[in-house]
Amino acid sequence: MTDDYFMGRALQEARAALAAGEIPIGAVVVLDDRIVGRGHNQTERLRDVTAHAEMLALTAAANHLGNKYLTGCTLYVTVEPCVMCAGASAWAQLGAVVYGAEELKTGFRRFGDLLHPRTALRGGVRAAECAALMQSFFRAKRR
Amino acid sequence: MTDDYFMGRALQEARAALAAGEIPIGAVVVLDDRIVGRGHNQTERLRDVTAHAEMLALTAAANHLGNKYLTGCTLYVTVEPCVMCAGASAWAQLGAVVYGAEELKTGFRRFGDLLHPRTALRGGVRAAECAALMQSFFRAKRR
Repeated sequence: MTDDYFMGRALQEARAALAAGEIPIGAVVVLDDRIVGRGHNQTERLRDVTAHAEMLALTAAANHLGNKYLTGCTLYVTVEPCVMCAGASAWAQLGAVVYGAEELKTGFRRFGDLLHPRTALRGGVRAAECAALMQSFFRAKRR
Repeated sequence: MTDDYFMGRALQEARAALAAGEIPIGAVVVLDDRIVGRGHNQTERLRDVTAHAEMLALTAAANHLGNKYLTGCTLYVTVEPCVMCAGASAWAQLGAVVYGAEELKTGFRRFGDLLHPRTALRGGVRAAECAALMQSFFRAKRR
């Protein structure tokens, strides 16, 4: 099981968001090669700015595992997390965060290292596919 | 209606958290002198690191108002928000964030200005009472 494979599962979630008229971002949480939580952006449907893909996936994983700490888990998300989701990832003490496309404006990285010191960070996994989904959404919005 | 009054309502929420064995932090969201959302820390009960007082109060306010944007609303919270909650406050485009006790270690302020540019920030409201609740919790924990 590779980063590419699990990013593909996050991309499936992102496509579900797109089909529902949401900004197409998807996430999965993986422990020992098994998906223990997933989510896609639902800020419109739930009318809730906190309903980002990552937040829903982290909450789902904690529910599934019965543990609020997700040590040893990896969060895969199609777009670089925002400050809120980076903060949530820090509290969860994730083993790793892996994102697809970078997000220069709202991504957390320009605010410094907001993740837990023990959380590894990898970016750029299937970035072109992740970015293409976002571009198609915003292009359609502008029409 | 003053900051002191609404911080008192946030303190009531914090005491409810304390009574439930949670880290005693409470929050209310106020629009036009009315409370439209409230919450207290429930990370233990829900086994969910995202269940901070502010997150629950913001979600409750958005549900109540039927609008994910909380422009014109003020978030009162007994302790300086963390990075996650500051990020959520930014997405919600709050009118103001008012906190009680400062939090030098996990508070958002040391990471820079994470709030929305139109969000006012005030701190130190009933700070001694807010801090005393936290101290009594952690003192009891150590025993």
